Amino acid sequence: MEREQKEFRELTSSKEARNIINAIKIKPALKKVPLGHANNRILAEDVFSDIDVPAFDRSVKDGFAVKAQDTYTATEIEPVTLENIGSIAAGCVSDLALDSGEAIEIATGAPIPEGADAVMMVEHTISENGNILARRAVHINENIMRTGADIMKGERVLRRNVRIGPREIGVLASIGISQVTVKELNVGIISTGDELVQPGSELYAGKIYDANSYAIAASVEECGAKPIVYGIVKDDERAMSDAIDSALQECNMVLTSGSTSAGVGDVMYKIIDEKGKTLLHGISIKPGKPVIIGIVDDVPLIGLPGNPTSALSIFNEFIAPMIYDSLETIPPFRTKVQAVMGTSIRSEGRRELYPVGLIRGKVYPADKTSGAITTLAEADGIIEISEETEYLEAGKTIDVTLFGNIAPVDLMIVGGQCPGIDLLEDLTGMKFRVINMGSSRGLSAMVAGIADIAGINLAGSGDDKLEAIRSTGISNAVLVKGYRREQGLIVRPESNIKSLEDLPGKKIVNRNRGSGTRALLDKLLEELAVKKGTTKTELVKMMPGYSSGSRTHRAVCDTILNKKAEVGFGIRPFAQTVGLKFIPVIVEDFDFLINKEIMNIPQVRKLLVALRSHNFATALPYGIFTYERTGEIIENI
Amino acid sequence: MEREQKEFRELTSSKEARNIINAIKIKPALKKVPLGHANNRILAEDVFSDIDVPAFDRSVKDGFAVKAQDTYTATEIEPVTLENIGSIAAGCVSDLALDSGEAIEIATGAPIPEGADAVMMVEHTISENGNILARRAVHINENIMRTGADIMKGERVLRRNVRIGPREIGVLASIGISQVTVKELNVGIISTGDELVQPGSELYAGKIYDANSYAIAASVEECGAKPIVYGIVKDDERAMSDAIDSALQECNMVLTSGSTSAGVGDVMYKIIDEKGKTLLHGISIKPGKPVIIGIVDDVPLIGLPGNPTSALSIFNEFIAPMIYDSLETIPPFRTKVQAVMGTSIRSEGRRELYPVGLIRGKVYPADKTSGAITTLAEADGIIEISEETEYLEAGKTIDVTLFGNIAPVDLMIVGGQCPGIDLLEDLTGMKFRVINMGSSRGLSAMVAGIADIAGINLAGSGDDKLEAIRSTGISNAVLVKGYRREQGLIVRPESNIKSLEDLPGKKIVNRNRGSGTRALLDKLLEELAVKKGTTKTELVKMMPGYSSGSRTHRAVCDTILNKKAEVGFGIRPFAQTVGLKFIPVIVEDFDFLINKEIMNIPQVRKLLVALRSHNFATALPYGIFTYERTGEIIENI
Repeated sequence: MEREQKEFRELTSSKEARNIINAIKIKPALKKVPLGHANNRILAEDVFSDIDVPAFDRSVKDGFAVKAQDTYTATEIEPVTLENIGSIAAGCVSDLALDSGEAIEIATGAPIPEGADAVMMVEHTISENGNILARRAVHINENIMRTGADIMKGERVLRRNVRIGPREIGVLASIGISQVTVKELNVGIISTGDELVQPGSELYAGKIYDANSYAIAASVEECGAKPIVYGIVKDDERAMSDAIDSALQECNMVLTSGSTSAGVGDVMYKIIDEKGKTLLHGISIKPGKPVIIGIVDDVPLIGLPGNPTSALSIFNEFIAPMIYDSLETIPPFRTKVQAVMGTSIRSEGRRELYPVGLIRGKVYPADKTSGAITTLAEADGIIEISEETEYLEAGKTIDVTLFGNIAPVDLMIVGGQCPGIDLLEDLTGMKFRVINMGSSRGLSAMVAGIADIAGINLAGSGDDKLEAIRSTGISNAVLVKGYRREQGLIVRPESNIKSLEDLPGKKIVNRNRGSGTRALLDKLLEELAVKKGTTKTELVKMMPGYSSGSRTHRAVCDTILNKKAEVGFGIRPFAQTVGLKFIPVIVEDFDFLINKEIMNIPQVRKLLVALRSHNFATALPYGIFTYERTGEIIENI
Repeated sequence: MEREQKEFRELTSSKEARNIINAIKIKPALKKVPLGHANNRILAEDVFSDIDVPAFDRSVKDGFAVKAQDTYTATEIEPVTLENIGSIAAGCVSDLALDSGEAIEIATGAPIPEGADAVMMVEHTISENGNILARRAVHINENIMRTGADIMKGERVLRRNVRIGPREIGVLASIGISQVTVKELNVGIISTGDELVQPGSELYAGKIYDANSYAIAASVEECGAKPIVYGIVKDDERAMSDAIDSALQECNMVLTSGSTSAGVGDVMYKIIDEKGKTLLHGISIKPGKPVIIGIVDDVPLIGLPGNPTSALSIFNEFIAPMIYDSLETIPPFRTKVQAVMGTSIRSEGRRELYPVGLIRGKVYPADKTSGAITTLAEADGIIEISEETEYLEAGKTIDVTLFGNIAPVDLMIVGGQCPGIDLLEDLTGMKFRVINMGSSRGLSAMVAGIADIAGINLAGSGDDKLEAIRSTGISNAVLVKGYRREQGLIVRPESNIKSLEDLPGKKIVNRNRGSGTRALLDKLLEELAVKKGTTKTELVKMMPGYSSGSRTHRAVCDTILNKKAEVGFGIRPFAQTVGLKFIPVIVEDFDFLINKEIMNIPQVRKLLVALRSHNFATALPYGIFTYERTGEIIENI
């Protein structure tokens, strides 16, 4: 019964969640830090100056201290002669006092001597036999910065709650402050889950690496608070309770992640209820369902989702504001841009924080697969979808909240994986979003209009490729001939495999369905079957692992290196690099399908220039090469 | 002759300076850091994944692993019964294999058992006598995240040169990386000048605190490079040369400040010329004239101006881009806003980086006095004035490059200094720019239209103040009655001064000319003179220090505490706080003149609400108090 209740518990609306969070007041600790460590910290108290800046009347120019009145008649033609009675360097105090008709050489920053009331710049004087000729008049106070003109003793120079930056540090140093009191908000971070292991240690079966401890700690740091990482705790009530107790003792706020769902776990809920008070359990915004917010002896204890992308989204949306509020500082700008949906998105009728990519002002979903950690890393920002919205149509204008300092993506390339694309990115200096899904997924992304460019090695080499492209129904694209790649068998050096004919009976690692390389192998095996008087199906039956689907050329090589397969099929470069043997079988064309509408934008022109460049030709790895058709444009798809 | 040349040397245009800077290539060092210290660093190499993420087919829901085919007929009305043969928790590996008609309880994150091809959410099942009733159908792969669906082994997950943030850290952790190679650019920082002393130590006569070392170090850090501070070096060629040698050895770039002007110093120029090559000496943009850029054994050696505001401006404009470029990372957004000149600025016909404040979208000069360190701290951004521009007229639209994360200023208040204003700022939660220049400067700022509000205690208490205001020619303002303040004599507790009559013969500290408090004392002494049958001038002659000009009430108190004067005149609160004796003399009105045009903006309305609030009345310090006229509005000035 108890269980039933929790599953169907009522979620708190995100507005109400914000109200609950706003009502939580955390008092950060105060800490004195040396000025050299104060950057980016929050000043805890008003700072008043104990000194005048400057502390004395000082010269702001190199020149001569004079009585202004002595110079009133001076001109270039009829200069006034003054007796040079000495000099004052910066940092020195002088007993010299100036009388009428006298001048004292003075350096920038040096104190004005008694009797002087102006400084004449050296450029307006001529030195002559121990005298100086003043060639123009100066007025009283000219080139003098008076005591306290910058900062007066007793003045408030900085207000509390300001975020200390280089400019504030300069001001603090200039009034002689070497230590400053800042706010310190300690945030305890605990990852929970039996499946977690720490990065750097071995990944046993069934385990995953703990990403949350690190990602949340870095986020806490960005807010100006101090993360204290307690590491991984097993999904065990006693262990979690103990870890949380330590964290509660030492921190102003405690964040856990994992063990908050309504299922097997629900331990966090129980722990908060026992130790303190649960303020909410579940926010009705995707991905806020598993969130728990409680308070124990005035310390907020917050359970975040176990999935890192969800945990970071909730942190940014709900927890970061709580930290900024507690530090009484303004959060950094979250840059909002208006952009146009590049594709349609169907929503679940639930309020949602939806990670998106932004490519030349167009918005695309960044979600590779539900629960992926890469989602956030590949996203440029978040759109918020309301519960009323079921369908966001392509072309609709929408607000995107950007993740800080994002380099805009120039081109989105979907399709076959190739080091040639990485090289083009490096040579052009542009930023590509490369989604390696195989040539046929590249084609469908072009049909769907969500890719700028598809990299394809589909249907082997030659112009039969055109037919394959046309058959997909693509009509909005131009085909640009790319480069050639050697495809062949990849084996360990000691292998006795010599050709395709040796494959039957061997354990093979294959590429993913949809990759051009796999399609090429299929075709080659069909030809072999004809030659052998059998069928491809029969041949493949004799090759265990043929249905496997490594998504990259490097992954194929790794599988062979690790002896999980004897042979693979792919391009030369990676095999070569890791010391495997490459047996050439065929040369294929790797081409680019480019959306017709963007053929003339600077980004595509840059790409084409790079593709045809000598630099590109010479920098390609062995086994990939340009030829006479590289860069050729075929418009009539 | 040599000297002549340097003085009239040709300055490099800022465009040419940028070209010179762009041509300098610095190669940062590489450093392996633990993931916990990688935030905000620049990734030095591409990162490929050595594992699949997830490393196994995993359940993304709590529920039951099943064969999808078994569930195809299941509905709520006619559920399918499956035998529950066990359970798998997250982090565990199970030998269980699933046959048709069976189900295995499975937790989110647990590996899918052999034989299963879908997970049914627990919400769609009912448990019954060791069996489960499946109440709906699931399709193949439902609620399963396949091996490598997030990250494939061999995939490039992060590109080199990316700035590592929480999201990147999450990705790195999730593929098990605990250490990451980042770029490390060591920037040596040297402050030069005999007049400099370190903050925290005693400020001897003629000295100033070194602000540059700290402010530049913090700026270097913000760029993602590592500052190495070498401290203060005397203006001595040998000492500077030695310090620079050490820095050149240990750093990828060396910044000095000071000793670059054409006058007494010019040491830096000589040192660079001896050790390496001078690339430029002086940039024709104010404040770039003293800048020197040289190169010694491929290490850039750069002399910045000694004035901290100039040094930071040049750093931001020319040196930060060099650092970003060397780290091969994109600089952070520099937010540009369009704003309207709130006042006119006269330029010198020289290209200029001009610090400005931004108040509700209007641009005002932030320069308090030439060479002030507070300038940058009080500025919100920079405008660039071209050499052709001699006059920037009020009302003209202009681009302002903001300094990062600036809280917008709500109201600009110029005039008399009073803790009541600080209290209003705290109570309203707004941000004021308060410029304490005295009441009469407040009035002229209102006339000039550069203040929103003037705080005035001019002409004592009562409505004779109206006359003083009218006589300034102000016609665009409304007078809002503020609060009352006790003004009186401030003495040390042991003093035998009892009243104004005791002043002659005593050393006094006075407020600055233009302050209402000084004007009030003048008036009181005039009355006293009449009573005594003498003149104010005669009275004042007997009070040494009467011509002094402390700009704040606190500074007056400090002077008395330090026994540099016996008596001062001012308001009660500060005197009380620091343990001085306050002898009440008169009660005055402290009022607000508010620009008529902004009377109805929310910021002013908030201010008026706060002024009339009970909170304000009770939080005022002893000696300042509201009364029946507080908040009263007098429109007819």
